[in-house]
Amino acid sequence: MPSSSSSVEVNADLQNERNKCSFNKEEFTLWWVGGEDQLRQKRSREKFFISQPEFQDEVPLHFASHKEVYEQSLRKATVIFTKVKKLLQDEGKYDAKNYVYHLDTLLGDGFIKEGNPLRVHFSMFVPAIQGHGSPEQQSQWLKPAMDCQMVGSYAQTELGHGTFLRGLETTATFDERTDEIVINSPTITAYKWWPGGLAQTVNYCIVMAQLYSNGKCHGIQPFLVPLRDLETHMPLPGIDIGDIGDKIGYKGVNNGYLGFKNIRIPRTNMLMKNAKLLRDGTFVKPVSSVLTYGTMVFVRVLIVKNMAQHLAKTATISVRYSCVRRQSCINPGQPEVQVIDHLTQQAKLLPLVAKSIALKLTADNVWDLYQNLQLALESNGGGLEQLSELHALICSLKAVSTTDTATGIEVCRLACGGHGYLSCSNFLTFYGVATASSTYEGENTVLYLQTARYLVKVWNQACGNKKLMPSVQYLADYATKPTAKRFPWSDSVPVVIAAFQAITSNKLRVACDHLEQRKKAGYTHEEAVNKTALELVRVAELHGRAFILSSTWEMIQKANQTASPQLVKVLRVLCELVVYDEALKATGDLLRFTTMSETDLIHLQRKYEEALSILRPDAVSIVDAFDYPDFVLGSALGAYDGNVYERLFEEAKKSPLNQEPVNKTFEMYLKPMMRRAKL
Amino acid sequence: MPSSSSSVEVNADLQNERNKCSFNKEEFTLWWVGGEDQLRQKRSREKFFISQPEFQDEVPLHFASHKEVYEQSLRKATVIFTKVKKLLQDEGKYDAKNYVYHLDTLLGDGFIKEGNPLRVHFSMFVPAIQGHGSPEQQSQWLKPAMDCQMVGSYAQTELGHGTFLRGLETTATFDERTDEIVINSPTITAYKWWPGGLAQTVNYCIVMAQLYSNGKCHGIQPFLVPLRDLETHMPLPGIDIGDIGDKIGYKGVNNGYLGFKNIRIPRTNMLMKNAKLLRDGTFVKPVSSVLTYGTMVFVRVLIVKNMAQHLAKTATISVRYSCVRRQSCINPGQPEVQVIDHLTQQAKLLPLVAKSIALKLTADNVWDLYQNLQLALESNGGGLEQLSELHALICSLKAVSTTDTATGIEVCRLACGGHGYLSCSNFLTFYGVATASSTYEGENTVLYLQTARYLVKVWNQACGNKKLMPSVQYLADYATKPTAKRFPWSDSVPVVIAAFQAITSNKLRVACDHLEQRKKAGYTHEEAVNKTALELVRVAELHGRAFILSSTWEMIQKANQTASPQLVKVLRVLCELVVYDEALKATGDLLRFTTMSETDLIHLQRKYEEALSILRPDAVSIVDAFDYPDFVLGSALGAYDGNVYERLFEEAKKSPLNQEPVNKTFEMYLKPMMRRAKL
Repeated sequence: MPSSSSSVEVNADLQNERNKCSFNKEEFTLWWVGGEDQLRQKRSREKFFISQPEFQDEVPLHFASHKEVYEQSLRKATVIFTKVKKLLQDEGKYDAKNYVYHLDTLLGDGFIKEGNPLRVHFSMFVPAIQGHGSPEQQSQWLKPAMDCQMVGSYAQTELGHGTFLRGLETTATFDERTDEIVINSPTITAYKWWPGGLAQTVNYCIVMAQLYSNGKCHGIQPFLVPLRDLETHMPLPGIDIGDIGDKIGYKGVNNGYLGFKNIRIPRTNMLMKNAKLLRDGTFVKPVSSVLTYGTMVFVRVLIVKNMAQHLAKTATISVRYSCVRRQSCINPGQPEVQVIDHLTQQAKLLPLVAKSIALKLTADNVWDLYQNLQLALESNGGGLEQLSELHALICSLKAVSTTDTATGIEVCRLACGGHGYLSCSNFLTFYGVATASSTYEGENTVLYLQTARYLVKVWNQACGNKKLMPSVQYLADYATKPTAKRFPWSDSVPVVIAAFQAITSNKLRVACDHLEQRKKAGYTHEEAVNKTALELVRVAELHGRAFILSSTWEMIQKANQTASPQLVKVLRVLCELVVYDEALKATGDLLRFTTMSETDLIHLQRKYEEALSILRPDAVSIVDAFDYPDFVLGSALGAYDGNVYERLFEEAKKSPLNQEPVNKTFEMYLKPMMRRAKL
Repeated sequence: MPSSSSSVEVNADLQNERNKCSFNKEEFTLWWVGGEDQLRQKRSREKFFISQPEFQDEVPLHFASHKEVYEQSLRKATVIFTKVKKLLQDEGKYDAKNYVYHLDTLLGDGFIKEGNPLRVHFSMFVPAIQGHGSPEQQSQWLKPAMDCQMVGSYAQTELGHGTFLRGLETTATFDERTDEIVINSPTITAYKWWPGGLAQTVNYCIVMAQLYSNGKCHGIQPFLVPLRDLETHMPLPGIDIGDIGDKIGYKGVNNGYLGFKNIRIPRTNMLMKNAKLLRDGTFVKPVSSVLTYGTMVFVRVLIVKNMAQHLAKTATISVRYSCVRRQSCINPGQPEVQVIDHLTQQAKLLPLVAKSIALKLTADNVWDLYQNLQLALESNGGGLEQLSELHALICSLKAVSTTDTATGIEVCRLACGGHGYLSCSNFLTFYGVATASSTYEGENTVLYLQTARYLVKVWNQACGNKKLMPSVQYLADYATKPTAKRFPWSDSVPVVIAAFQAITSNKLRVACDHLEQRKKAGYTHEEAVNKTALELVRVAELHGRAFILSSTWEMIQKANQTASPQLVKVLRVLCELVVYDEALKATGDLLRFTTMSETDLIHLQRKYEEALSILRPDAVSIVDAFDYPDFVLGSALGAYDGNVYERLFEEAKKSPLNQEPVNKTFEMYLKPMMRRAKL
């Protein structure tokens, strides 16, 4: 076996790539992370985390059993909790938000690949107490929760219902006689299913259930329910709880199931910051459900942010590997080339590098919109129109970003050939995380239909000459002028962006026509929507894509005001690549709804190929500038030093199968089979 | 916890679906499996396999560690070998081909999800002895190999080289003094990497290495190399062997690495049916390498066949689940609908049902072409032109079918919402198998470029009015008439197929123009190909897609000659759905190169939606007619009885974490954390 430890020398091909960098990497990194303070903090945290031996695995957990993965993940989760709590307390910054921020933004999933079984405790249980608990409830539960004496999960999804919340079946029935609420799972499909940490880890849970009092159903409300004995951790009587089994992604988070049989909790365990249940069973509606919507928007903005990071990480791995790997000659008799010198490889990876930047800039842009919305909601009780607008936008962006990221990660993996299949390449971790986001926090197709509903409403307003919100303002021109606005095509970025708005508008017009035709033919509005759903989904997707392109363009324009000419050039070409890439995927729509000609199309393809070749020499430097340390990437293929083959060997050596020269199965199965055959 | 065993009753919604079947299922099944004999044999084998208790796992292996997965997979592999050998011997049919056929075609990977560590022994080691061994070598090695006394792997891919075979680095140097060949791994990248069964299972291996004799390199040749002691199974001196680690898919096949340090084998261990190495080191070239190409074609036809089956299986799971699952109302106040009643769900799944049929018919069609080729090659030493034609075709078909199947399986999985992520849904197994096929047996992009090379050659022949082979005959019209042939558009299937040929031809013309321009600008041919590669890849893909559409149409026309009117109707609509689906994905090209108008496009979309709604009531019956028993699907979501929720629970109960009420980590980690915080 080759010598065991990775050399500290950098692979020569990779060093050569770095030598030809055309821009200042540190300038790029500062822009990418958002400034000097952020960069300093990020690097100091990374240093802290990498220096903790207890945060590491003795043997990589992809070799472990389902049970061991949980046990090791919980071990790490408790150590991380203790150390990070101390760190943050020393700085006077210990709260749930900051804790989750440390897990996510600074560390990413490369560090704790299998996910963290205490994560839902901090990201949902504690925030639910903060968001839905009355002041008294908060003063009672927040401290023990933040100290992890109460460890909680958040149980909403059931075996039979996910995105369609109204369908949830768990009941919470008020018993006025005892002033208690009785929780039940009336059917098998009413079982809670999926909450992280629920199976073996937590002793409390926020349970979403249909509240009944005085013979009426008051809809879904949150209840704090104890699940396990605080001393023995045994499930309490009437609580049926366990692990839902192995799955793709997040293998260590301990997703659980939970059924209730006449579980009695005090009435005051219903979280009553918003809605209230009085002693006599009177239900008091919340003032407004706007804040709930706000939280949904917030979580989805975070998803877009995270997708950008995951895609940037996997692109880093693939780009580095593609510069180290040499395969096939281009000219016969010449040496084999770096695989990134094959144009097909550039076309797989560089648009994904650019897209990760576009998604990041889009998330930053929406984040600003969200902050403005919060101000509007808090300051004057207004902002409802903005909320609908932003909700429609973020639904589409969440769906586009998760779909593109999951697909993009697989492109990155496949671009690494066979080695991309190995768990030590770490692509499967990132894929698991990205693909899961397509389903949770609103299934993507359902989200597109929500965006579409808003767009149809706005379209009708636009046709009536009503004023529109900024993100849909572009529809106005197309609504009021019956023929499509046909501006002269060019492949300048603003024109292509306008072209995307043109196709979105025109396709929305066509879809609205079909919707009306169907309603005239006798279908209900909802049936007509279902029958037109394929067109509506596409329109909703295009709305998001157009926004991503315009955000990228705007944010890069903004960055260019202060950037060096070298960085300006790189960012400009990255922006072009994103825009051309999207345009080449939408040629059917562009030919249909813009003045683009066949010659224009060939020219666009040429410009796209030019952008690839301009970025090629800087490819490694750009991904270097994303500034992901090796332990965050967690990949044998993507380490900074490029010692790919040595690392693949090191990882293989860790396989438990390699710790003995002959596996016991030889004596047990192989030898008897060989002997039997001989007779 | 709900009652433990699945009810034998069929889910009412699923039964209702079956009640409205418009055709005779048995007639469909007979057509699908190829006749009464095939169906009888298939069912008898299924019965045999399901009745063997040793073939089952006590606990599903997705809960097991990497090491346990291997150990259990090897246990099953040896039991299966012994039982199937006896079965086949009793019928006088025991040979490697039949053995593999039993594993693959009859059982599928649902049965032994983690793959079989003895599979390469039968699918590559034994056939390599048959294909490359001289008569003496065959008489010496075939019997012990078929009896599994010699257990072998086939080592070609190295750490540093996969698809580009000429780059392999392992050396086999003839030592005339001792009449031996000395095998070496001169670098770390020369290590063999990936062969199935290599790590801990086999004691022999066919090794592909660069042969050197008399100071010259004679290229890659096959050598039989002993690896482990037959008695002790210890690796032989100079053999560095082990497991490459955990990976996506085929987790039990024991992929290994292998390095050689001065391993000496007799000269006569070089397989010498074709090339020969004489006593004095003289290398005698093989008469022709045509047969090697033939084998490559054969393996790729099998891949297309298998992809069709995998896609059909996953579509079966998703369609059944989508009829059992109810989620969201369409009309307010009405009950929640079966998710398949959402048009978006139909558009996800039904085209994949249709595509699995299209891929199967395409594979059948290419299989016939392959048989004809074999006849031509054997009978008159001819067939070389046919071989090039078929090779170009199968390269594209392998790439299209593996890409579409892997993508399609993920669509099926995502269409099942959260439950699709659970390992017990079994989607991940199928995805692992399908995505791996994108990389092995020729990486897809490399294969497309091989197809493209042939198409460019043929295009130039066509421009010179040469006669073309049948599968590329359609290019002739476009090559000789400088303007694209613009026939009147209609959405009849033959016209859409002709339109696909039109766009393939026209895009090939454009790509050839660009190639020439680049050569005139001073690039070598190979450089020009690299710079035009994106266009060439797309042309190669379209060539394959056009062939899939025309095969489907032809094979269904043929079936319709004898089918009942009810079956004719179903097959016709399935064919339309495949064709419309492809057309709607290529609107950019269609608008560019055919007379299709915007109105035509809207009409096509409408026809596509009509096809979905015609097939909707038969969806379950069609997938039922694929006739996959539950144990082949291996999915809690897709069982025939549709008791989805009960099965999900049953599978969860098997989790080792659920075998004890409190996991040991409570005392080890959780409790100390909770207590620490209290202080």
